Amino acid sequence: MAQLDLQTQLRINAERLQASLLELAKIGATQKGGVCRLALTDMDQQGRHWVINKAKSLGLSVSVDQIGNTFMRRAGRSAHLPPVMTGSHIDTQPTGGKYDGNYGVLAGLEVIATLNEHGIETEAPIEIVFWTNEEGSRFTPVMMGSGVFAGAFSLEHAYSRTDQAGKTVRNELERIGFLGKDKIGEHPCGAYFEAHIEQGPVLEHHDITIGVVPAVMGLRWFDCVVHGFEAHAGPTPMEIRQDALQVASHLMQYVVTLAKNHAPHGRGTVGMVQVFPNSRNVIPGRVQFSVDLRHPDATVLSQMSAGLQKKIDSLSATHAMTITLEEVSYFPPCNFNDACVEAIREVSKGLGYSQMDVVSGAGHDAIYMARLAPTGMIFIPCKDGVSHNEIEDAKTVHLEAGANVLLHSMLRFAKPIL
Amino acid sequence: MAQLDLQTQLRINAERLQASLLELAKIGATQKGGVCRLALTDMDQQGRHWVINKAKSLGLSVSVDQIGNTFMRRAGRSAHLPPVMTGSHIDTQPTGGKYDGNYGVLAGLEVIATLNEHGIETEAPIEIVFWTNEEGSRFTPVMMGSGVFAGAFSLEHAYSRTDQAGKTVRNELERIGFLGKDKIGEHPCGAYFEAHIEQGPVLEHHDITIGVVPAVMGLRWFDCVVHGFEAHAGPTPMEIRQDALQVASHLMQYVVTLAKNHAPHGRGTVGMVQVFPNSRNVIPGRVQFSVDLRHPDATVLSQMSAGLQKKIDSLSATHAMTITLEEVSYFPPCNFNDACVEAIREVSKGLGYSQMDVVSGAGHDAIYMARLAPTGMIFIPCKDGVSHNEIEDAKTVHLEAGANVLLHSMLRFAKPIL
Repeated sequence: MAQLDLQTQLRINAERLQASLLELAKIGATQKGGVCRLALTDMDQQGRHWVINKAKSLGLSVSVDQIGNTFMRRAGRSAHLPPVMTGSHIDTQPTGGKYDGNYGVLAGLEVIATLNEHGIETEAPIEIVFWTNEEGSRFTPVMMGSGVFAGAFSLEHAYSRTDQAGKTVRNELERIGFLGKDKIGEHPCGAYFEAHIEQGPVLEHHDITIGVVPAVMGLRWFDCVVHGFEAHAGPTPMEIRQDALQVASHLMQYVVTLAKNHAPHGRGTVGMVQVFPNSRNVIPGRVQFSVDLRHPDATVLSQMSAGLQKKIDSLSATHAMTITLEEVSYFPPCNFNDACVEAIREVSKGLGYSQMDVVSGAGHDAIYMARLAPTGMIFIPCKDGVSHNEIEDAKTVHLEAGANVLLHSMLRFAKPIL
Repeated sequence: MAQLDLQTQLRINAERLQASLLELAKIGATQKGGVCRLALTDMDQQGRHWVINKAKSLGLSVSVDQIGNTFMRRAGRSAHLPPVMTGSHIDTQPTGGKYDGNYGVLAGLEVIATLNEHGIETEAPIEIVFWTNEEGSRFTPVMMGSGVFAGAFSLEHAYSRTDQAGKTVRNELERIGFLGKDKIGEHPCGAYFEAHIEQGPVLEHHDITIGVVPAVMGLRWFDCVVHGFEAHAGPTPMEIRQDALQVASHLMQYVVTLAKNHAPHGRGTVGMVQVFPNSRNVIPGRVQFSVDLRHPDATVLSQMSAGLQKKIDSLSATHAMTITLEEVSYFPPCNFNDACVEAIREVSKGLGYSQMDVVSGAGHDAIYMARLAPTGMIFIPCKDGVSHNEIEDAKTVHLEAGANVLLHSMLRFAKPIL
């Protein structure tokens, strides 16, 4: 194999990867072509066993940790070296697609299959991992497995979380046979890569194959409540109303203005609105809405929050209404490791793929892994930027390209023995 | 009694009126001091019998028509003259108050009690009426009894309407014993007056006792739907979003602008909003909201609607989104009879009450009666302009004043025999 010029000749098998994706997508398949495989359900259990069987057929050894994260290991020549890891998750949204998460795991197994088929050994071990409950649809918080793994929150906290039926994470892990023995905090990691569909429209919009992800945006979530005075829509003159929705809709406009004022990376979204009493002929007495602000720079993100608060103070004074703004979540921005990002960029160029930097707007397991080890992410386009949806789709040529970039990026760290 | 100077000496008994109001309010009383007496329920039945018993004790004869409207008649000297009528309704909102509707009916009975006690006969008969299902809380349409009475819609249509449990108006009328025999269309009316709390803040705001109501605003109700594109709040850049809520909140602002551009009578309200999928980190793909436009001039009201449609067309083009606007209800403006309005104005002045014109923004049974006979309305202030609420309140001095204006206005038409 010493004759093999890796850069020009070593490629993953796109058909095999695509076949794997479609095969795994049968477990929890929905009528509309999507997947419903919620964390720690029977479907998740079946999916996990399918992946493990595939890993075993590739000669990998399997271990499970206390939160159900599952590691599939290919030995390296130097057993003492920390593994070069890749992976993602196989749980989905209730009306999820075939690629979100699943692609990262199966691209990892495809990397192994490719190395096996060419008989390529590496200095460092290589591990493929699927993390428990990334989606957070059934149990919060999201990115639970990688969060516990990285020490972002405790194992006990995760264990105690319940679904809507009151079932705990711990009991459900035990029930599906994935309450593993490997202790949290004792699993080394040399570097971590994650391949993922972009879940946004940028790559498609620019007709680019590979997204190099230098960072993940920070996120601040708020609940805003505007308190007006409920009154009959007919007899109440405009000038003496305290219409909570008028002030709220003004703020909804401002959230977008705020994001546009911090282009190109600023994001501002109002996704959830509740109007009280929500009656056609009653002036709203109270409006509650969510605010989602994102930016890759923590300082700018703070400025955006401060700008929103300033606007609220001003509207509150002008309209003599009480407006409350409560922060309900904060994820700081995450910068990925320069060496990993640079490796992905160079590999993409070397393989001849068009590429551009894309700051991730969404959360991924890689965010937590970045706390432990050099980490990088590879994005590929998805159709119309849509994910968390049964119509989620990605082109084979992009799935192939992302897996090839993953393969060669990992080899730079795991070091092939030629 | 010929010696009695009606203008200076004949007054209703405020304590007796107030006591009646509090007594009737016990039927369906809520813990928070309001009343829940939905149309055609057991509570409504009890309330109807209480009012009828009171009417009988005042010597009135009672008849019920096919839609359950109940007429309580005091004979006039000229039996062939059409009756001078007054009334309102005794059904309430689920969390209604003591005065909305009930005041109009009991002020009418207080007029009778006053005439009886002074032995005053009239040329024309006087009738007090309570109309079936004015509120429309249990069965739509609102103002059902007076609407059928005035031929605005058919008896069969009203009979067939169902509540949420599937019970029909006809069966419920029969069940409570108010499926009357008097045929619709055969009941004459010489003039109609209705005393009512304002249900708005204008009189209180100006510290005025009597509202002379020259007209009721026309009303147009619309459902507006903005169709955007649902996408993840994080990865989707601002410039390529199709955020349905951004366009919808712009329109919400404009509905108010439109009303303010047609001050002082224009009204514009968005009371009801539904966001889809209504998730914190998803850009809204669709927003549906109600629009309530009111104005006393039908031409201006049409201009307001056209202005809204023009704004929608412009936003739809700018944002490349589909926006639909569907009219779901239209009540044309209603001008009350000049003679009735003038009578109320003059009587108020003569009795020494402060008074001002107040265009009614809300619907009342009087709107339908205006199609059949000379009609006028008398408003009195209510606390903070609040109604359709358990905290609805009115001052005794105002309840008294309104009933005195009702008494003397009716006498102008019924002609006391002195």
